[in-house]
Amino acid sequence: MGLISHESLTIWCNNYFAPTQRTEQALLREGIGEHRLMMNDSRQDGATGDAERALLDADIAFGAPDPETVMRAEKLRWIQLNSAGYTAYDRDDFRRALASRGAIMTNSSAVYDEPCAQHLLAMMLSLARGLPDSLEAQRSTRMWRMEDIRLNSRLLNGQTVVLLGFGAIAQRLVELLAPFGMNIIGVRRRVSGNEPVRVVREADVDHYLPLADHVVNTLPANTGTANFIDARRLARLKPGAILYNIGRGTTVDQDALLRRLEDGQLAAAYLDVTDPEPLPPDHPLWAEPHCYITPHTAGGHADEKERQVNHFLENLHRYLNGAELVNRII
Amino acid sequence: MGLISHESLTIWCNNYFAPTQRTEQALLREGIGEHRLMMNDSRQDGATGDAERALLDADIAFGAPDPETVMRAEKLRWIQLNSAGYTAYDRDDFRRALASRGAIMTNSSAVYDEPCAQHLLAMMLSLARGLPDSLEAQRSTRMWRMEDIRLNSRLLNGQTVVLLGFGAIAQRLVELLAPFGMNIIGVRRRVSGNEPVRVVREADVDHYLPLADHVVNTLPANTGTANFIDARRLARLKPGAILYNIGRGTTVDQDALLRRLEDGQLAAAYLDVTDPEPLPPDHPLWAEPHCYITPHTAGGHADEKERQVNHFLENLHRYLNGAELVNRII
Repeated sequence: MGLISHESLTIWCNNYFAPTQRTEQALLREGIGEHRLMMNDSRQDGATGDAERALLDADIAFGAPDPETVMRAEKLRWIQLNSAGYTAYDRDDFRRALASRGAIMTNSSAVYDEPCAQHLLAMMLSLARGLPDSLEAQRSTRMWRMEDIRLNSRLLNGQTVVLLGFGAIAQRLVELLAPFGMNIIGVRRRVSGNEPVRVVREADVDHYLPLADHVVNTLPANTGTANFIDARRLARLKPGAILYNIGRGTTVDQDALLRRLEDGQLAAAYLDVTDPEPLPPDHPLWAEPHCYITPHTAGGHADEKERQVNHFLENLHRYLNGAELVNRII
Repeated sequence: MGLISHESLTIWCNNYFAPTQRTEQALLREGIGEHRLMMNDSRQDGATGDAERALLDADIAFGAPDPETVMRAEKLRWIQLNSAGYTAYDRDDFRRALASRGAIMTNSSAVYDEPCAQHLLAMMLSLARGLPDSLEAQRSTRMWRMEDIRLNSRLLNGQTVVLLGFGAIAQRLVELLAPFGMNIIGVRRRVSGNEPVRVVREADVDHYLPLADHVVNTLPANTGTANFIDARRLARLKPGAILYNIGRGTTVDQDALLRRLEDGQLAAAYLDVTDPEPLPPDHPLWAEPHCYITPHTAGGHADEKERQVNHFLENLHRYLNGAELVNRII
């Protein structure tokens, strides 16, 4: 990308700032300097109101713009999503529209890799060390369950983890797991050959599932991943295996998962994403004793909004200087 | 230590094997080869019965022998404790008695360092990621508490952890924390100068407590550590700090801790040890919403008994070959 002239640009933004996030909003305003910021609250006027019309005049968009409008926004040269997921934009017609005018898209993967990787390790260690059992005893009988919890506690060392999806989250998790001496097998559609651990092709995943003590799913939602973990693949897991899902709920056949938990073949499932979300209170996965659910919090952290803004401002600086943008997806 | 002749030795053992642990007991029997194994079940005859008399004839003891008897056991040359803690043996008269006949003592620290370090990281990450809040919501209202839990989630990166005690557990925890980019400050009685992170003298601990987001206590029980974390030191912690205790319950003033949790100055406490143990069901720490208790399970794991036996057999091999023993404490 060549050096871009420092004309005044119009930056459309529908990244939402809560009333408690004035500091982060001010950070954004100051950071964009002489350029024009158009704040839009899509929570109020939806995707078809003033916000949509404003997008047609913008050079840059930051947030979660309506994909149909983006395809018609001829001036738009760069879109930065405030999320890591980009299912709504992962379409051939959308890619073609952007390519036809040299526009690019980035996401906020850099904001969410670290909390997601730490969330996964928290889940893995929490189950290995019996923390949920201890908490449930504390909140009920207050029995001192020393003997049975000790006997059911585990070390991660020497266990095998299969990573479904080998993007930024999985790669960061590999770094966090390095001191534990686990056997790590990554699974991705296209193996690059320079991954830091053994990575195998998605087409061969069925050969590797039976080896796993831990199956860590970070798959995004798309046509290729719907029900990726189906009854057949769940049946390939060895007794006592644990499934973790922080990808998308639609990538797992939840009915089949429930059956594997009920019949005790899986030791546990730890889900941060479900289908649908929120999971209705009467859904049987809530009541399954060995299913642990966090309400789509894996990517969250107290500084999330500040990091979203800083990630955008860093990319804006790169954009204005003709440098490669971080987390480019289109 | 010089090469020791391969006479047949008498090995006294009161390490308890449950009926389900016959394999581990057989491992011990096979491992000691031609030497004589005297199994004693101290759970049945206490410290003053046949087991005590047998100890007086032993060359080696493995388990948790009565310290008074050990001092009178003139033939005993090496004692390996099956625990990491050794409070009952940490006495001047005991040390003198062993020294007077050239006897040595080892513990099983190598069996417990890894689970304890993983348990601590599990506690730290679990709280940082709001896992207890999610589990409590799941087991009660099943509300999808996405927004408030995300806003209260944390990353460990850049936070400060003060390690009270810098023995094998803390040193292993430092390795596990390496990928997180935390500020780590160890506190120990005698600074060796070659520690892998910054370590300060216990005498200066009060200067460092106010810096801590996380205070990790692995202190053993002895006269110098009783109530080490007292009301005055708790008052030095900054608002929002978290205290972890896997050392011994007596090292913390639990009444003062309860007050700091009740007044919200501490964000949380995560205790694996209490005073007394088991903690009585009506103890107010059980009911404190931000106090999380595991029932002395930090060192436990499914392979614990096997690792106890292997650790003893490895040291026995070293002993018979005149090599330095691992985990020597006296």
